[in-house]
Amino acid sequence: MICVSVMYPQAPGKRFDHVYYEQKHLPLVMERLAGHGILRYEIQQGLSGLGPGSEPMFACIGNLYFTAVSDFQQGMAAHGAELQADIPNFTDIQPQFQISEVA
Amino acid sequence: MICVSVMYPQAPGKRFDHVYYEQKHLPLVMERLAGHGILRYEIQQGLSGLGPGSEPMFACIGNLYFTAVSDFQQGMAAHGAELQADIPNFTDIQPQFQISEVA
Repeated sequence: MICVSVMYPQAPGKRFDHVYYEQKHLPLVMERLAGHGILRYEIQQGLSGLGPGSEPMFACIGNLYFTAVSDFQQGMAAHGAELQADIPNFTDIQPQFQISEVA
Repeated sequence: MICVSVMYPQAPGKRFDHVYYEQKHLPLVMERLAGHGILRYEIQQGLSGLGPGSEPMFACIGNLYFTAVSDFQQGMAAHGAELQADIPNFTDIQPQFQISEVA
């Protein structure tokens, strides 16, 4: 199993609508990628760094789980443009991506 | 439920022993924090960025799940020194931490 982490770096003055992300964006991702091997997703809403009250590195991290990297690539080829076009509806942060093997 | 993400940034010349991390370090974390509310953990071994063959941001991300932040804090107060002392056994990367609410 692989995980695509979509990480939105925290920065002053940036906005992130957690409600839209949870209730609209990720259900859309799930619907569009259901035929492309997406298994599930997890949303991590940044609270802090290690110390209480410190800033989190990321306002939000979305972890998308697939059987294989090729599933994700095929899904993005088919629906990536639509999914990316939805990003301004919840944030002005440019996401960073990481693909990992889940051990 | 909260998640403590322990993120090891990828950098040239740095080492990360994924076998030790999976087979020794995280079982030790689980054992020591079992009485402090740890629920489970997940290991993400960095493969790439968004593009095939690109470098991942993080060599590895360990996600530790707890019921509450206070559980993690109490567990680290009791066992943090021992757990941190084990880090040089698998890496010379300084980890970065993020605490998140799992939506």
